[in-house]
Amino acid sequence: MYEYEAFNDPMQRPRYTGISTFMRAPHSESWDNVDIGLVGVPFDGGVTNRTGARHGPREIRNQSSLMRRKNQSSGICPYDLCNIADLGDAWIQKPFHLEESLDEIEYYFSQIHKRGIVPVSAGGDHSVTLPIYRAIACEHTVGMVHFDAHCDTGDDYLGSKFHHGAPFRRAVEEGLLDPKRTIQIGIRGSLNDLDIWKFSHDTGMRVVYMEEFAERGWKSIMEEARNIVGDGPTYISFDVDGLDPVYAPGTGTPEVGGFTTLEAQMMIRSLQGLNLIGGDVVEVAPPFDPSGNTALVGATMMFEILCVVADSVGQRLKLEE
Amino acid sequence: MYEYEAFNDPMQRPRYTGISTFMRAPHSESWDNVDIGLVGVPFDGGVTNRTGARHGPREIRNQSSLMRRKNQSSGICPYDLCNIADLGDAWIQKPFHLEESLDEIEYYFSQIHKRGIVPVSAGGDHSVTLPIYRAIACEHTVGMVHFDAHCDTGDDYLGSKFHHGAPFRRAVEEGLLDPKRTIQIGIRGSLNDLDIWKFSHDTGMRVVYMEEFAERGWKSIMEEARNIVGDGPTYISFDVDGLDPVYAPGTGTPEVGGFTTLEAQMMIRSLQGLNLIGGDVVEVAPPFDPSGNTALVGATMMFEILCVVADSVGQRLKLEE
Amino acid sequence: MYEYEAFNDPMQRPRYTGISTFMRAPHSESWDNVDIGLVGVPFDGGVTNRTGARHGPREIRNQSSLMRRKNQSSGICPYDLCNIADLGDAWIQKPFHLEESLDEIEYYFSQIHKRGIVPVSAGGDHSVTLPIYRAIACEHTVGMVHFDAHCDTGDDYLGSKFHHGAPFRRAVEEGLLDPKRTIQIGIRGSLNDLDIWKFSHDTGMRVVYMEEFAERGWKSIMEEARNIVGDGPTYISFDVDGLDPVYAPGTGTPEVGGFTTLEAQMMIRSLQGLNLIGGDVVEVAPPFDPSGNTALVGATMMFEILCVVADSVGQRLKLEE
Amino acid sequence: MYEYEAFNDPMQRPRYTGISTFMRAPHSESWDNVDIGLVGVPFDGGVTNRTGARHGPREIRNQSSLMRRKNQSSGICPYDLCNIADLGDAWIQKPFHLEESLDEIEYYFSQIHKRGIVPVSAGGDHSVTLPIYRAIACEHTVGMVHFDAHCDTGDDYLGSKFHHGAPFRRAVEEGLLDPKRTIQIGIRGSLNDLDIWKFSHDTGMRVVYMEEFAERGWKSIMEEARNIVGDGPTYISFDVDGLDPVYAPGTGTPEVGGFTTLEAQMMIRSLQGLNLIGGDVVEVAPPFDPSGNTALVGATMMFEILCVVADSVGQRLKLEE
Amino acid sequence: MYEYEAFNDPMQRPRYTGISTFMRAPHSESWDNVDIGLVGVPFDGGVTNRTGARHGPREIRNQSSLMRRKNQSSGICPYDLCNIADLGDAWIQKPFHLEESLDEIEYYFSQIHKRGIVPVSAGGDHSVTLPIYRAIACEHTVGMVHFDAHCDTGDDYLGSKFHHGAPFRRAVEEGLLDPKRTIQIGIRGSLNDLDIWKFSHDTGMRVVYMEEFAERGWKSIMEEARNIVGDGPTYISFDVDGLDPVYAPGTGTPEVGGFTTLEAQMMIRSLQGLNLIGGDVVEVAPPFDPSGNTALVGATMMFEILCVVADSVGQRLKLEE
Amino acid sequence: MYEYEAFNDPMQRPRYTGISTFMRAPHSESWDNVDIGLVGVPFDGGVTNRTGARHGPREIRNQSSLMRRKNQSSGICPYDLCNIADLGDAWIQKPFHLEESLDEIEYYFSQIHKRGIVPVSAGGDHSVTLPIYRAIACEHTVGMVHFDAHCDTGDDYLGSKFHHGAPFRRAVEEGLLDPKRTIQIGIRGSLNDLDIWKFSHDTGMRVVYMEEFAERGWKSIMEEARNIVGDGPTYISFDVDGLDPVYAPGTGTPEVGGFTTLEAQMMIRSLQGLNLIGGDVVEVAPPFDPSGNTALVGATMMFEILCVVADSVGQRLKLEE
Repeated sequence: MYEYEAFNDPMQRPRYTGISTFMRAPHSESWDNVDIGLVGVPFDGGVTNRTGARHGPREIRNQSSLMRRKNQSSGICPYDLCNIADLGDAWIQKPFHLEESLDEIEYYFSQIHKRGIVPVSAGGDHSVTLPIYRAIACEHTVGMVHFDAHCDTGDDYLGSKFHHGAPFRRAVEEGLLDPKRTIQIGIRGSLNDLDIWKFSHDTGMRVVYMEEFAERGWKSIMEEARNIVGDGPTYISFDVDGLDPVYAPGTGTPEVGGFTTLEAQMMIRSLQGLNLIGGDVVEVAPPFDPSGNTALVGATMMFEILCVVADSVGQRLKLEE
Repeated sequence: MYEYEAFNDPMQRPRYTGISTFMRAPHSESWDNVDIGLVGVPFDGGVTNRTGARHGPREIRNQSSLMRRKNQSSGICPYDLCNIADLGDAWIQKPFHLEESLDEIEYYFSQIHKRGIVPVSAGGDHSVTLPIYRAIACEHTVGMVHFDAHCDTGDDYLGSKFHHGAPFRRAVEEGLLDPKRTIQIGIRGSLNDLDIWKFSHDTGMRVVYMEEFAERGWKSIMEEARNIVGDGPTYISFDVDGLDPVYAPGTGTPEVGGFTTLEAQMMIRSLQGLNLIGGDVVEVAPPFDPSGNTALVGATMMFEILCVVADSVGQRLKLEE
Repeated sequence: MYEYEAFNDPMQRPRYTGISTFMRAPHSESWDNVDIGLVGVPFDGGVTNRTGARHGPREIRNQSSLMRRKNQSSGICPYDLCNIADLGDAWIQKPFHLEESLDEIEYYFSQIHKRGIVPVSAGGDHSVTLPIYRAIACEHTVGMVHFDAHCDTGDDYLGSKFHHGAPFRRAVEEGLLDPKRTIQIGIRGSLNDLDIWKFSHDTGMRVVYMEEFAERGWKSIMEEARNIVGDGPTYISFDVDGLDPVYAPGTGTPEVGGFTTLEAQMMIRSLQGLNLIGGDVVEVAPPFDPSGNTALVGATMMFEILCVVADSVGQRLKLEE
Repeated sequence: MYEYEAFNDPMQRPRYTGISTFMRAPHSESWDNVDIGLVGVPFDGGVTNRTGARHGPREIRNQSSLMRRKNQSSGICPYDLCNIADLGDAWIQKPFHLEESLDEIEYYFSQIHKRGIVPVSAGGDHSVTLPIYRAIACEHTVGMVHFDAHCDTGDDYLGSKFHHGAPFRRAVEEGLLDPKRTIQIGIRGSLNDLDIWKFSHDTGMRVVYMEEFAERGWKSIMEEARNIVGDGPTYISFDVDGLDPVYAPGTGTPEVGGFTTLEAQMMIRSLQGLNLIGGDVVEVAPPFDPSGNTALVGATMMFEILCVVADSVGQRLKLEE
Repeated sequence: MYEYEAFNDPMQRPRYTGISTFMRAPHSESWDNVDIGLVGVPFDGGVTNRTGARHGPREIRNQSSLMRRKNQSSGICPYDLCNIADLGDAWIQKPFHLEESLDEIEYYFSQIHKRGIVPVSAGGDHSVTLPIYRAIACEHTVGMVHFDAHCDTGDDYLGSKFHHGAPFRRAVEEGLLDPKRTIQIGIRGSLNDLDIWKFSHDTGMRVVYMEEFAERGWKSIMEEARNIVGDGPTYISFDVDGLDPVYAPGTGTPEVGGFTTLEAQMMIRSLQGLNLIGGDVVEVAPPFDPSGNTALVGATMMFEILCVVADSVGQRLKLEE
Repeated sequence: MYEYEAFNDPMQRPRYTGISTFMRAPHSESWDNVDIGLVGVPFDGGVTNRTGARHGPREIRNQSSLMRRKNQSSGICPYDLCNIADLGDAWIQKPFHLEESLDEIEYYFSQIHKRGIVPVSAGGDHSVTLPIYRAIACEHTVGMVHFDAHCDTGDDYLGSKFHHGAPFRRAVEEGLLDPKRTIQIGIRGSLNDLDIWKFSHDTGMRVVYMEEFAERGWKSIMEEARNIVGDGPTYISFDVDGLDPVYAPGTGTPEVGGFTTLEAQMMIRSLQGLNLIGGDVVEVAPPFDPSGNTALVGATMMFEILCVVADSVGQRLKLEE
């Protein structure tokens, strides 16, 4: 009923209007004909300090209205390459129990994985990546490009093995994640135990501390990253606390001294061409940033991930034709 | 696919989850079988001071997740009485032009009015009520219960007759609003012209200034309100600047010294039983209240209006059966 | 070493200085010679919507520096009547598990109860009052004056019986709380189930909805409250969401339309002379109020509760001499 | 050069435009032909807790653009009765020294007093009222209607007699203020010394605590106020912490449980007809309220004071003709 | 009347005092003897997403009090080289109509241009640069150094040719701007149409995307900029969204991944010696940054522009002598 | 009484719990067996613009809970090398008088210096470093590595020699600071007097302006810094306004265009091995940053300083054994 035909596409309408979905993609309860599913995982039962990441998906949806259809830098238009929909939020019915919640998240992602949908998610705290791996790494282990201030390969803490500081130890132990095909970028911050990331080192993950990052620059690091993950199936996990807290104050465990958003964008873009099977942006905790900027940054990183993942999925779809 | 059956109803899921619609009502692009349409009107081209009300619908949607199915005070459950849906936002394609935008808003509301849908809207600045009246008062003039710090019956200002301080003068002039069946509650604030609300007084609107309100109390005022509007078709227009600014700092023209939210709730509830044909909540300007409280208050008032309107619509639907 | 002798009392020093403890009371790891213990309960694992109450104790401590030694209205100086100390926070070592956390809280309060220390606590979400009752109501059931927007006598939700909307149902079921000696003041808000507070009504709790409160005024309500709790042991539980959200925006489940802080102060003061055995202020969630006002309000209510509790404890101490 | 003639009056232009002066009154470095001078006193060297009131004048100027020419309630148009100008800020050249700053403030107000200009000022902390009294009460003692949470008749503190908690003790001691013609309204808050306001009581000031205020209501209190100050020269001193902190969070020593802005407006208006010789609004500390609402409230109270003062000055000017 | 003679210069007084003008320059309604006019353009009727830039001039004035007389880096003291005054705001009397407002802005700048005053302005959204060009580029086309995230050479949108995404297309079409002497720096962000900046490319503007900027560094880019604009008359247009949003969150269309303020300062300083005929800082939208930092950044950039423009104007004035 | 033994160490408990001390170090009123004292200096009587630094120590304590035991980058664990305690705040009893307050601060630091305690402090404004020098530089002059936007070697201003823009001129004049062993890094900002830092240049301090810093990079600068201070006793003074304001908006005199937190961390770490005798972090003014990020940054810098100071103190303690 719009005079301008273009307005029948909600992405063309003024961006402050309408129901807010991820990137203004159509909201779909049905999963038919979806290649990439944008999914919210509103869970923060795994945080060890400041909560609030449960509100991440909604605020990222809100701010992601500022995203548009195409990537100016790479020229990728994900919507031309794949069918993309906002699938809503993963079903979490028992949020008071950490392990049961993780099981519910796993079940949800198993269902979409079964239908061949590649997930690009918005957390939620970092504990949610473990059940995603359980769902999508069932046939083969995955490699990972991991942006974060913390390796998240810690041990039991406060009575649990499954908090947001340990998912990747669990993922390796469960045979889901290949540590040799894992690189962790942006690591920093004071420690209670100098050996806290020993698991990463012992299992052969490549750990890039901020000092090295500052010394070598993002390009050199990302060349190494591409070599490490190779052409096996690879997942991108972006914890916003990898960024300096000025870019992402709305997060649970900020660590001063991180990389910039511009560096992050260029790093993600450099992953184009890899065999990408999904990705997530986690630890956006909106209550700690009333300005909404953290969620805008989260939405921007989600869009960058979507572009390279869609490029990879698009390649596979073409081959299948 | 939810284990708990109740969760198939999105209103039963944790309230921080999911796509945000008004009151968590279903979003419907189709207008079939809808009795009451919840509509956003993201337009603030009529404001004379601080803009931002264009962002009102989205933030009210977001905060309205805190609303539930039933009114504890009155016992009304609107969803049991009528089919209610979030219809999305009115189509505004030429937001740079005040008059054309108002025409587009009128066209939208005409379309839903034609289908017999009763609108309960979220603005947008107060200029949007005029085109709503043009759409729904075509068959007969309407009466109005109007909560506001300003009568909004001013004259031309800054080169326009259609700004947010004048809609009800225009509505009377155009034969849409019956001034004798109009009551304006909460009026206050300094003036550039002591006669600025002369039109209200001259045409016989009942103007309740805050001094009188404080003196007599809400109950006595509302008894008078019911008498004034009688049993003719009546519209409720709630400008959040009628409230004291501590309850609604996120608004364009705050005036210190208004009524409280509790008084507002009790006033709206007292309208139950009238012949109600629609209502709106306007002038929520989220950028001026990063806390979100103004939008929460707006959502709460919208829910109260929805309850009494649904009760009225429900009565009519029963008679029609 | 201070020139001014008075400064040896930290309460006399400029209030923006020093380590922040509750009310600037001495921090004591030892529990000897303490009559009233001010305790933080940094736990929000029981919330159903917005988290953050785990940060309540710290921010209430911070803002409570604005409290002084004496109550201007009642003349009570709690520090002259009893030994009062900030005991630090209850030990919660397994915050990821709701039930285990509640057990840990119970254990902590049992320990101080054993030593005859009367607790005045700062939450944390409202689920923490249940373990406090388990610890202090072991010898006899307690009565309660309960300020809140919600009765908190709900049923299982999201897979748990112990969330912050249910502690008082559990407390009655476990024989800790006497529903006949319970009054709940400030109840309001929309509902998913009109019968959600059926348990309160069925067991004989006195439920004061906001409409009745507005109609009758605080004085009349509090006369009734004194009659209901009588001279049996009585606990004061103050959920800041009983206040209108403008006074306490930093909370997890705000409901528009509550009472004012002035009314709350006068209500608490009117409890002087009862047989008081403790109290708490809960649901202060600082991330949702960067201004700190909610915590200031929480600290003020905690001080008011401290005054009437200290008066009661002081009476008992005198009798014991 | 404006097409619309009205625009040559800056008060008629859109309120977000132009250089911000108090009430959009003309800024005048010259003092000729000024009857009432609007003056900023950017000094907070007398505060005992949170600083920031030095920024009060500027932010009140900014928010006062929302004021208009006429008082809707009383019909007073101050600009029709007197010549009114924004005189800029009092000259404070030694802000690091409390006593010298007060001397500088006194000197400034003496200069304008000599020229017959009646001051309506915006502080600054409450210590600034003392030097204003020194300047304007040289011929005869003044009476005072004083809105505040604190009597400000305290003793030496932190090595000084001149901090913001003591100006009115000093003013009585110096023979400037007549305690028998003084009423203090809104007093409350916890105390370190129950006798801290002994000076007020001993010298015969009328002290209205919030309990009495809540009990009797503003009308009864103000009748008494008018009797107390009689027809002698009277000053209005409005400390924004007399208001409940929700209305004025941006202040140095907030005390929960104050009066409302609506009550304050009606109280000030009820002073019309007294022999008013000046007034001030103090303790607006903008850094503690990024929303700007406190300054808007301060500007509104300043406008209300301006109206009744202008009415009084206008009477005197007429008599002089 | 100041003891310290220096204080007769308002720029020497404490910076939180006094009426706030741009850089604390004298406010002048008269235009005689002014070489450079600091002008506010409070208009945001051309924005496509978040409004609020109408409040830019006032808040930039407020924050610009932190500016001082001299540029530490370049040694330029603009006030020694030219007569500089704050001329107030451009007259906009019909803010509801985009085209008419632009006409009013043009008329204003024509008037000051006629008197030989060089404008350095604070917007307002970017649509205001077009009418400035119409006023000052009447004798000869201008070149431009343009800092921005967007080329602003877009086409019609939402029914208008004159929104803030299109001024420079219009300026070229109207023969005001020489595209060959134009460089646009900082371009980035997702796009709805990959060809959206085709006009820039087709007409020969030099477009520097952020990737190239990051690769080459500001120095190399600015050498090229100087070559491109040469010694013809050149204008500097600084859209704060060219900066990364952490430096300027208070803007209408933030794009993650921009340059830093330090880079911006060094880039503007490197323009010293060019033939500069004016400049502006646009798109500061204060409601989206309650901290005031965006306006402080805007004021700082305006000062940097003022310095290089004053140096250029000073050269010309010397030649004229 | 904790089940987990580790919890007996408060540093191991969840970081949002407990009384907040600097770095969660034990609070000690006794000074026995303390090697390094963490001290708050809640004084802002020396600021020339925006106040609030008096609240710095408390908020830095609060945010420093995010610090942990060990430095990931250098491997230093200060608590293993020295006894470290939070000594509370310096005693300031006459905060209304600048000079007397400085005397009180000097007295306090003399007392701890006498006991051989090395101070690492949190201000307060920068005027407090002068009395610290008076206390600790009594036996020999000190060298300084000074991070700041301002040299703080200014002259008398607003009637005082001791404001926060002049401490290091005074310190040189009093023979406490060796200008030849002083380096000042990050200097920038507009100036009222181009010669304002003449004293620094004339006495031989090394002044590193931001342009040079940007050109050469932190490494080269810090090599020079180490040469300048040599192996004499050296103090680190970190004014957070040396950082770009995006990292530290909560400060009194922000200057756009500073260094990053990552650069600051690497610079401080590079001071390891020097003969360090103390350090401070000053000018954190929390009211200007409700997010708390500035205090988090302040706490992080304080931790970095603590690490290198502890390393140096540890070396001396070993030698003494």
